[in-house]
Amino acid sequence: MPIDRRTILGAVPVLLAAAEPAAGAPAAPEGALPGAYRYRLGAATLTALHEGTLARPLEASFIPNAPIEAVRAAMAQAFLPTDRLDITFTTLLIEAGGHRILVDTGFADNGPPGTGGTLRGLAAAGIERAAIDTVVMSHFHLDHVLGLRLKDGSLTYPNAEVLVPEAEWAFWMDEAAAARAPERLRPNFAAVRRIFGSGGPRVTRFGWDREIRPGLTALPAPGHTPGHTVFLLESEGARLLHLSDVTNHPALFVRHPDWSAVFDIDADQARATRRTLLDRAAGERLQVAFYHAPFPATGHVARAGDGYAFVPVQWGAPG
Amino acid sequence: MPIDRRTILGAVPVLLAAAEPAAGAPAAPEGALPGAYRYRLGAATLTALHEGTLARPLEASFIPNAPIEAVRAAMAQAFLPTDRLDITFTTLLIEAGGHRILVDTGFADNGPPGTGGTLRGLAAAGIERAAIDTVVMSHFHLDHVLGLRLKDGSLTYPNAEVLVPEAEWAFWMDEAAAARAPERLRPNFAAVRRIFGSGGPRVTRFGWDREIRPGLTALPAPGHTPGHTVFLLESEGARLLHLSDVTNHPALFVRHPDWSAVFDIDADQARATRRTLLDRAAGERLQVAFYHAPFPATGHVARAGDGYAFVPVQWGAPG
Repeated sequence: MPIDRRTILGAVPVLLAAAEPAAGAPAAPEGALPGAYRYRLGAATLTALHEGTLARPLEASFIPNAPIEAVRAAMAQAFLPTDRLDITFTTLLIEAGGHRILVDTGFADNGPPGTGGTLRGLAAAGIERAAIDTVVMSHFHLDHVLGLRLKDGSLTYPNAEVLVPEAEWAFWMDEAAAARAPERLRPNFAAVRRIFGSGGPRVTRFGWDREIRPGLTALPAPGHTPGHTVFLLESEGARLLHLSDVTNHPALFVRHPDWSAVFDIDADQARATRRTLLDRAAGERLQVAFYHAPFPATGHVARAGDGYAFVPVQWGAPG
Repeated sequence: MPIDRRTILGAVPVLLAAAEPAAGAPAAPEGALPGAYRYRLGAATLTALHEGTLARPLEASFIPNAPIEAVRAAMAQAFLPTDRLDITFTTLLIEAGGHRILVDTGFADNGPPGTGGTLRGLAAAGIERAAIDTVVMSHFHLDHVLGLRLKDGSLTYPNAEVLVPEAEWAFWMDEAAAARAPERLRPNFAAVRRIFGSGGPRVTRFGWDREIRPGLTALPAPGHTPGHTVFLLESEGARLLHLSDVTNHPALFVRHPDWSAVFDIDADQARATRRTLLDRAAGERLQVAFYHAPFPATGHVARAGDGYAFVPVQWGAPG
């Protein structure tokens, strides 16, 4: 059964953004260049891939537990627009131990204008889609999972084993959960079932606190979704903690970890997870990656006041 | 007369770095991707080009007026190595008002390994060297000016008018200044004369506080060199202040504007210029660019304690 593209695309604005650019959002320059940033971690080579950007109006409903004035002040402090939020997406290619592992997929060609950069970035980096042997999913929100198939229904990464969190699979595949899902999550339930249904990828489920590929360990980070997972990559003593969607934009949610975006399915649990993992990253001075940090979406976390600050990596250093 | 490459390259380590990578500097990943970041400023399209990186040991002699312990602490605070400094180079292509303007040239193919990225970046962006009609020089240090010619002596940008600061030209071309130059500047004097000598580019000198191309104004920033110049670009009400070498690495010299790197020819004057221009950028919340900030080397300046903080641009925003 081919993926019903209208159903999937219909769900994207619900989760992510208005279908139309937010007022005041300038158009991207024509002929945007692919964003691909390659860096090293021990013996591993990592390539951050700029999947794209969607702008959404910045309204009070986005962070229900913070005054909109405080949200706009945080944006201004970061020299960002105060009337819209540009949500960026960064997928991560890990080349280590003989594997080529893609962490999350973005939209492939199923997304709104301004997305799909992972495919352009892979091409720029000279990596064939067929050469990806592993796709690791942090969770099943549409901006992460839609890119498992192209819009013609074929597999984007035809030779990849797709590793998915057991708890995430259980949630989205549960008939009772689907039946009681709030309206805004229903298209996501439908899309997940179609993506993993007939003709879908070869799936292997994993439990938390397991090494799912050599040096790559899946760690629990529930709250954003029930099975939301982060990943610790270790190579020759170097470590990187991929924080997935533990925060949305760092200028808001690393700085103010108690603020909750509407995307968190269990806001209280997500907040506790966020505090725990940001504090670990800061305490251990771990290099981190995020899916929704500005490209190349890697850096460090420092304690700052009653929250934290994201310090982006310094592009251009040789290592 | 062809450029004497040994003379030029011989001078590079003096100004920039040891010829050998600093101990502890990891090698760049193989097949480094071109760094090109395109952004918009009003009706202008800008492309930051990652020319490259050179690592130098971080020793007390680099910042003579700061304790090395304080310098290392500033590096650690920015999650940077404390034993070496990775100095990056970013050239800037401005497409505005029918012009294609390159601000500073990097090394072209005359530099040490790890440089030359401007040429790769232009290729990635689909811009022919022959299509550059203007090159603007901020000053004549070798890492800015060497790329005006290729190592075979030919012009890198054969159709470009090269706009140079009058005061910079006067300093480096002055026989008396050359005769009394300290040992470490002599190769720079020699190289400048060769680059602009027989077969050299078509040069036009400009004075400060002039609009040298529509919307592009040259402003005085002396101290780093006598004719060191910064540039204010304005388009449809949007403004960008290109701060050239007003600071070297922002984690050190934006944060601690009174610290002086050995590269400043007149340290006191450079310090006063730095304070004035950083304070203007912070006060007016101007978007800024630097030649030595981490790629893509653009962002904003905020007041922080007795200094300032550089807030990098958020790559991925559509504008």
